[in-house]
Amino acid sequence: MPLPQRIEAAAGAPFTVTPQTVIVVPAGAPPMTVATQLLAFIRRASGLSPEIVVAREPAQPASVIALTLDPAATSSDEGYDLTIEAARVTVRASTPAGLFYGVQTIRQLLPAAAEYEALLYRKPPTVTLPALRIADAPRFEWRGAMLDVARHFFSVDEVKRYIDLIALYKINRLHLHLADDQGWRLEIPSWPDLTRKGGASEVGGGPGGFYTRDQYKDIVGYAEAHFVTIVPEIDMPGHTNAALASYADLNCKGTAPAPYTGTDVGFSALCVDLDVTYKFIDDVVRELAALTPGPYLHAGGDEVKTLTPEQYRTFVERVQKIVESHGKRMVGWDEVSAAALLPTSIVQHWRPDASKQLLAGSPHLILSPADRVYLDMKYDDSTLLGLNWAANIPVQRSYDWDPDALVPGARPGSVLGVEAPIWSETLSTMRDVEYLAFPRLAAVAELAWTPQGQRRWDTFKVRLGAQAPRWTALGINFFRAPGIDWAPTR
Amino acid sequence: MPLPQRIEAAAGAPFTVTPQTVIVVPAGAPPMTVATQLLAFIRRASGLSPEIVVAREPAQPASVIALTLDPAATSSDEGYDLTIEAARVTVRASTPAGLFYGVQTIRQLLPAAAEYEALLYRKPPTVTLPALRIADAPRFEWRGAMLDVARHFFSVDEVKRYIDLIALYKINRLHLHLADDQGWRLEIPSWPDLTRKGGASEVGGGPGGFYTRDQYKDIVGYAEAHFVTIVPEIDMPGHTNAALASYADLNCKGTAPAPYTGTDVGFSALCVDLDVTYKFIDDVVRELAALTPGPYLHAGGDEVKTLTPEQYRTFVERVQKIVESHGKRMVGWDEVSAAALLPTSIVQHWRPDASKQLLAGSPHLILSPADRVYLDMKYDDSTLLGLNWAANIPVQRSYDWDPDALVPGARPGSVLGVEAPIWSETLSTMRDVEYLAFPRLAAVAELAWTPQGQRRWDTFKVRLGAQAPRWTALGINFFRAPGIDWAPTR
Repeated sequence: MPLPQRIEAAAGAPFTVTPQTVIVVPAGAPPMTVATQLLAFIRRASGLSPEIVVAREPAQPASVIALTLDPAATSSDEGYDLTIEAARVTVRASTPAGLFYGVQTIRQLLPAAAEYEALLYRKPPTVTLPALRIADAPRFEWRGAMLDVARHFFSVDEVKRYIDLIALYKINRLHLHLADDQGWRLEIPSWPDLTRKGGASEVGGGPGGFYTRDQYKDIVGYAEAHFVTIVPEIDMPGHTNAALASYADLNCKGTAPAPYTGTDVGFSALCVDLDVTYKFIDDVVRELAALTPGPYLHAGGDEVKTLTPEQYRTFVERVQKIVESHGKRMVGWDEVSAAALLPTSIVQHWRPDASKQLLAGSPHLILSPADRVYLDMKYDDSTLLGLNWAANIPVQRSYDWDPDALVPGARPGSVLGVEAPIWSETLSTMRDVEYLAFPRLAAVAELAWTPQGQRRWDTFKVRLGAQAPRWTALGINFFRAPGIDWAPTR
Repeated sequence: MPLPQRIEAAAGAPFTVTPQTVIVVPAGAPPMTVATQLLAFIRRASGLSPEIVVAREPAQPASVIALTLDPAATSSDEGYDLTIEAARVTVRASTPAGLFYGVQTIRQLLPAAAEYEALLYRKPPTVTLPALRIADAPRFEWRGAMLDVARHFFSVDEVKRYIDLIALYKINRLHLHLADDQGWRLEIPSWPDLTRKGGASEVGGGPGGFYTRDQYKDIVGYAEAHFVTIVPEIDMPGHTNAALASYADLNCKGTAPAPYTGTDVGFSALCVDLDVTYKFIDDVVRELAALTPGPYLHAGGDEVKTLTPEQYRTFVERVQKIVESHGKRMVGWDEVSAAALLPTSIVQHWRPDASKQLLAGSPHLILSPADRVYLDMKYDDSTLLGLNWAANIPVQRSYDWDPDALVPGARPGSVLGVEAPIWSETLSTMRDVEYLAFPRLAAVAELAWTPQGQRRWDTFKVRLGAQAPRWTALGINFFRAPGIDWAPTR
């Protein structure tokens, strides 16, 4: 899960992990990261700790798991081939990311017990991997999840936990919604009150919080080790009450509004007529871009109810230039499709009723239709957490649609992929997030990875039910959705 | 849960929470803590925020929840009376602890949704409490849980999480196992290497960790707000490799052993012939006692395989004097019953085969029979986490026994109560802890609270299955034990 593109059971005996098993890996830090992760899974599953051998096969290889890099291995940057034979497992990929995804597949072939960090065996079990051949590559390059850390703040450890969980399903983007009316979550040294004042609130009146620059870098590094690119978002011109409350000068009237802890939207906007607004944006974008190795910077742009259409377009185009000037590609919510966008810019489609014509003209598209993949929507009328302004979204509804059919007339290749946001108005803990994200996040991951023709709800739901022991081992607070035969847990 | 001592459905309409509802509370910080907690539960369940009125009833009380303190209210310090009528809920108790337990009972009468911190209602539900009368008091004064933070370290937030969960079931002691072979977890300024060196290890080679004095005080304060007394344990003379590895001088041979990250027991012991050993113990006990408001200090005493019986007894008696000299009552594992104990000392029975005769002579007893209430024992042979050296412990086995019958001949009144330890050799996260603790912790809580004659497995298991929605709302990673009809979750 997600289902590989091609998978064939092979004749012959399964591969058995033995005390002689070694992991062979090419030189370099990223492959070593992947090999170390694989070693941890194998050790936890089997009690054995294979030696990691760098860049050369042992002379008499009795039992080898080989991670190999070969520019010609696969046509996809993130694809991999996995062959399992009696004495040899081979993962071939053209990039370390491909190796990482091959290892996630091996991880899922190991017993769920491999997910426990501290399991002890009195009598370690014999661990085997079935003989098979897999040729795999993702359907889309953008396989995203978004976490709203603004409405409620989530700690560094909580964000890392979410990275752990999305990486298992080969999701490769984590979009962090870092600022909204209720809180500003990233330290910006040139505007220190953004966090000093704007960071100290959240929905419901809790203490809020923010990431220091070092903490943000820690998150970025952790994501990198899981082949996840952080996409930071500073929402503007709307959803900015936390910034406006921090600096009176940013307000047209020159007075700062009170901190906001409710859940309305659309009431706040940066003052588009003030020069200081663009100085502010330039500072924030510059500092954020400097901390962010990934090529993307999300500038929001949604739900602005206080500007004329022309003011809005002008603003977006000016912000786009600022983002470009600091070397990043702008991402914006689908309202920005009304502006004149650069060929590098990316539109994130979220409103089910957004103009399909404007969307079709976008240079690039990410698909996050709220009535399909907003993970904070309730499962059904009885779900306690979450909202339902877009729809109730049972698991099947999140799974059963075709991203390529959503925006008729979109330029071929313009759809970069799919992203599942989770907004946190009703969520204050990672356990709350997990309850809404699982099982639907797995559905979205497969939507983004597996070719449309191979996805079938009937077979997906069987594989989904089989995840229960692994999710239990990971301690995931998942919703046991009705209609799915959840495997018993031990 | 635990089942109250006496509960009667009453005639008449249920109590309805309305915008006019007020909470009336006596003056003082502890009652206000309880009222504030009650307010939070009501707000989350109903969307309404009752006013808290201190020390006087409103003139025209349309709808009141009254927390009242009355020295004559109940004969038990921790008991309470709860009456629910159409326009008035009254909790009467002789102490704030009794009010707290009354509020836990109200909490369990509220919908499970009250456990969500950030739930938002579009249309808040009408919340009612059924008309009833409860007269309740605990069977035992010692209703304990123990968390082993030595084998794997658990953060302050994780310990607070455990306090949250045990308090729901009226458990009132949290015993923290703060030092063992694999790690020393509390800052002791006079012996700084205990944490600098001894804190940096844990089972399996992880980073370990420790609590600063301020963090420990934070835990103690959080426990106090939940009417839980922290019982700190420094295990000695055995289980001391972390201390011995920190200071060469503490070793008979004068050289420090290596840090230990395995799971053997019995190999380490303080050098009972060295004066510095008692200087060390006196410093540690003095500093720990000064940080600990509760009357208990646990000195361990278990599994010493390297001393003669006489050396062991002499050591225990000397330590007992040190503990007494710093104003605390010594608690020790059941091996200490071989020594001459002070009338204030407490023996914690854990070995199923411990001498019942020695136990019967103990001044005070806490019952933690490993084959009944060691929560780290597996549920059955298929359980992945945990150990099984004492027994597999299905839920019924943890519930179906009588503490008063365990030690024949024990002096009347000497059994203070029951404690459920959880050892962390195989547990590295609070989610792992939860999987073994729930549902068995609820069984132990009822064992310690409810009179023996009112406890029946057949009815208990029905109430247990009904906890599933609340546990889901709390994000508890609980084991869905077979044979129990777990209520569906939303």
